Amino acid sequence: MLHLDLSNVTPFLPTGWRTGEEKGLEKAHDHVLNGTGAGSDFLGWVRLPADYDKEEFARIQKAAQKIRSDSKALVVIGIGGSYLGARAVIETLTSNNFNLTRGEGTAIYFAGNGLSADGLNEVIDLVKDVDFSVNVISKSGTTTEPAIAFRIFKALLEEKYGKDGARERIYATTDAKRGALKGLADKEGYQEFVVPDNVGGRYSVLTAVGLLPIAAAGLDIEALMAGAREEMELLSKPGMDNPAWQYAAARHALYESGKRVEILAGYEPAFRFFAEWWKQLYGESEGKDGKGLFPASVEFTADLHSMGQFIQQGERLMFETVVRFDTAHTQLTIPDDPENVDGLNFLSGKSMAFVAERALQGVTLAHVDGGVPNILLTVPARDARSLGALIYFFEFACGVSGYLLGVNPFDQPGVEAYKNNMYALLGKPGYEKQKAELEKRLES
Amino acid sequence: MLHLDLSNVTPFLPTGWRTGEEKGLEKAHDHVLNGTGAGSDFLGWVRLPADYDKEEFARIQKAAQKIRSDSKALVVIGIGGSYLGARAVIETLTSNNFNLTRGEGTAIYFAGNGLSADGLNEVIDLVKDVDFSVNVISKSGTTTEPAIAFRIFKALLEEKYGKDGARERIYATTDAKRGALKGLADKEGYQEFVVPDNVGGRYSVLTAVGLLPIAAAGLDIEALMAGAREEMELLSKPGMDNPAWQYAAARHALYESGKRVEILAGYEPAFRFFAEWWKQLYGESEGKDGKGLFPASVEFTADLHSMGQFIQQGERLMFETVVRFDTAHTQLTIPDDPENVDGLNFLSGKSMAFVAERALQGVTLAHVDGGVPNILLTVPARDARSLGALIYFFEFACGVSGYLLGVNPFDQPGVEAYKNNMYALLGKPGYEKQKAELEKRLES
Repeated sequence: MLHLDLSNVTPFLPTGWRTGEEKGLEKAHDHVLNGTGAGSDFLGWVRLPADYDKEEFARIQKAAQKIRSDSKALVVIGIGGSYLGARAVIETLTSNNFNLTRGEGTAIYFAGNGLSADGLNEVIDLVKDVDFSVNVISKSGTTTEPAIAFRIFKALLEEKYGKDGARERIYATTDAKRGALKGLADKEGYQEFVVPDNVGGRYSVLTAVGLLPIAAAGLDIEALMAGAREEMELLSKPGMDNPAWQYAAARHALYESGKRVEILAGYEPAFRFFAEWWKQLYGESEGKDGKGLFPASVEFTADLHSMGQFIQQGERLMFETVVRFDTAHTQLTIPDDPENVDGLNFLSGKSMAFVAERALQGVTLAHVDGGVPNILLTVPARDARSLGALIYFFEFACGVSGYLLGVNPFDQPGVEAYKNNMYALLGKPGYEKQKAELEKRLES
Repeated sequence: MLHLDLSNVTPFLPTGWRTGEEKGLEKAHDHVLNGTGAGSDFLGWVRLPADYDKEEFARIQKAAQKIRSDSKALVVIGIGGSYLGARAVIETLTSNNFNLTRGEGTAIYFAGNGLSADGLNEVIDLVKDVDFSVNVISKSGTTTEPAIAFRIFKALLEEKYGKDGARERIYATTDAKRGALKGLADKEGYQEFVVPDNVGGRYSVLTAVGLLPIAAAGLDIEALMAGAREEMELLSKPGMDNPAWQYAAARHALYESGKRVEILAGYEPAFRFFAEWWKQLYGESEGKDGKGLFPASVEFTADLHSMGQFIQQGERLMFETVVRFDTAHTQLTIPDDPENVDGLNFLSGKSMAFVAERALQGVTLAHVDGGVPNILLTVPARDARSLGALIYFFEFACGVSGYLLGVNPFDQPGVEAYKNNMYALLGKPGYEKQKAELEKRLES
C-alpha cells in the first residue's frame, strides 16, 4: 500500500550496496518473524493486527462511545509510548489543532507526561468545569509522572461525581495480572484494558494503549487495524522488494557510510507529532551500545526557512526520510489577482496540491544536490487505513533495522538511569546511599 | 539576569579550553559590536533593544489594542523568521495551547508558512465566522507561501467587510521603502510596520515582525524589550565572565572535540516552540560551508521516555543545553493517598516544582555519566522580561558562535536552492531552461 522510492539514495552508496545488506536482512527478518533474536519476548506487536483480542476491541469501541456520549473531555494520562502513539494518530488524522477544530466532539487532553506544574494545572483548568473522563495508561501504575497526575484527576473526579460516579469515568489500561494500577482498578471496579506483556511501550499504539484514546477522538480504529493488517501481510514476505527491507537496508548502509542523523520530514502540519512517535520508536530501539542514527524531524515547507539552510549546506551528517501523503483532505485553488502584485499569477487557478507537489520535488532535488540522500515514502491518503499501514511499516522496519545494527531493538536499559537518580534525590525509601552520593556531587 | 553553568561541560574538555577560545572570542565580539566581520550589514539587532523606533513601538501598541478590541482572531501570515519568533514568545509566555486557554482574548493563528491545503483551509474555517484581522509579514511580498495565503485572506476580508472595512483590518509588516507588499500597502492604505534592512529574519522577533503579534496576544512587549536591553548591556562587555562568550566558547570547543548535535532541552511544555525559533537561529546562522552543530530539541521529562534512551546510550555525538525557568507560574502540591497505591507517598505534600527540580538534577547527572556534556542556563521566570533577556542572549551568542566557527552568521545562501527549483517546476516565467532540466531529472 505504501510506496518507497530509493532513487535518491543509490547515488550516495557504493554499487551493490543492496546485495551487501541482504544476508543481514534475511537474518533480521527471521529474528522479527520467528523470535530468533535478542528481545524476542517483545514481539507481540508482529501479529497484532490480525491476532488482537476481538472481545477487548469491542469493549474499546463501546467505552469510546460512552466517553463520547457523557464527556466533553477525556484526560489521557500516560508517558512515552503511553501517549505518543495516540496523540500522533489523532493529530495526523485530524489536525495538530485537534482540540480547537473538533467541533462538538470530545476533547482529548494528554497529561502525566511531564513534571510541569503549569502544564498540569492547565489541563485541570480545561476540564474542571465540564463533564470529563480519565484514561490512565500505565503498565505498573508507579511511574512518577502519570502516577502524580492520576492522583490529582482521580481526586477531581471523585469530588465531582462521588466515588461511584467516578469509577464509571475512569478507564485503566494496565497489566493484565499484576501491578499497583491493576490492583486499584480491580478494587475500585474501573473498566480495564490490557497493556500486553509482549508489546513494549513504543510498539503499543495498536493495543488498547493507543486504541481507546483514538476511538474516543471519534476515529476509525477498525480501518486503522485493517491497514496495519494489510501491511503486515505484505511485509511478512522476505525479499529485497519488501519495502521494510529496503528502508532498513538504506538507512543501515547510510549509517555505515558515515551518516549520523536521520531527519523525518512531512509536508502536513498535522503530521508534526507523528514524527515524535517515530523518534521514540527509532531512537529508543537503536540508540544503545554507543550506536544509532540520531532521529530528528522537520515540517516542510515551514522549516525550509529555518532548518533548510543547515540541511542544504551545513555539516554533511544527515539524510532525509520524507513522508508524502498522496491526497489531501481538502482542496484549495490559488485565486487570481488581476494586479498580480506578488507576481504569482503563473499559479492562478492551480491547486495547492499541485504547488505542494512541485515544492516537494524541487526540495528533494536541491537537497540531493547538496549531498543529502533522500528516502521518499508515499502514503495513499491521510486516513486511518493508510496510517495503520504506515505505523506497521515503521514498526516492522524498526525491528529489522535494530537487528541489522546489532542491537536488541526491544529493550531500553538507558531509561532507568535518570529514574534512579530522580528517585534517590526525591528521597524514595531504599535509595538513601545513592541520595547521599548524588547530593555530594551536586554540592561540589 | 541569566545564569550559565558550565560545570558539566568542563570534564569533557581539555584543561585550559577556555583560554584556547579567548582570542577567537575577542575577535568575534568585536565583529558583532563593531561590524568588523562578514555580514556586518545585518547587525541592526545588536542595539535594537535600546535604539528601536519609539514612534513605531507606540503604533504597534495601539494597533494591538485595536485588534484586541475589534477581532476575535488575528491571522499572522509569514514564514521562517516572520512567524517563529512571535509564536515562540506567545507560547512560552502563555501555553503551547494558547488558542485553547486564552479565554476571551484574541486568538492568534499562523498561516502562510507552508503549502498544505488542509492547513490553510483549517485557518480559514477557524476565522471565517468571527471578526478577524490579518498581519501580513513579508519583506518582499513575493515569497510563495505567505503570498498565496495573503491572496486568500485578503479576499476573505474584502468579501466580509468590503474594501474599506478590510483595509482597516490589514496590517502590513514589510520593507520601509520598496517591494510588492510595500507598494500594495501604500496604495490600499494599510497600516504599515517595518522589517528593517539591517535585521535578518531570524533576528527579527524584537522588531515589528514579532512585536505586533505578541502584543496582539495581550503580552507585555515593553517588558520584553526591557529584558533584552538589560541583557544587551551585560553582554556588550567583553570578557570570559560574559555568559554569551561562555556559551559560544563551550559549544565551539565541544564541536571541535567532535560533538555534532546540540540538543536544546526544556522542562515546560510551553517552551516547546521556543526551541523551533532557536533551531532557526543557530541552524541557519551556522549551518554552512559544510560546518555547524545540528540543532535538535526535546521536552523533558516527556521525551526522557522517547529520546532519553538514545541520549543516555546511543551514538555519542551530542551535548545538551538545558533551559531552566527558576519559578513556575502556578503551584501544585502532590496529594497524599492514604492507601499509597502507587508507592509515591514519600512525595505527599511536596510541590511539583520540588519534584521537577530534583528530576532535572537527576537527569543531568545521568546524562553526564552517559557521556553527554550539559550546559545549564537558568532564566529567572517564564515572564516577558526574562524572555526578552533569553532572546537577546541567544542572538548575541549566536553571532559570536558563527564568527568563532569561521562562517558569516548573517547570511543564508542555501535557502535559495529549493526556491529556485520550485519556481522552475511551477513554471515561473524566466525559469524555462531550469524547468526543462529538472523535469528531465525527475523523469529519469
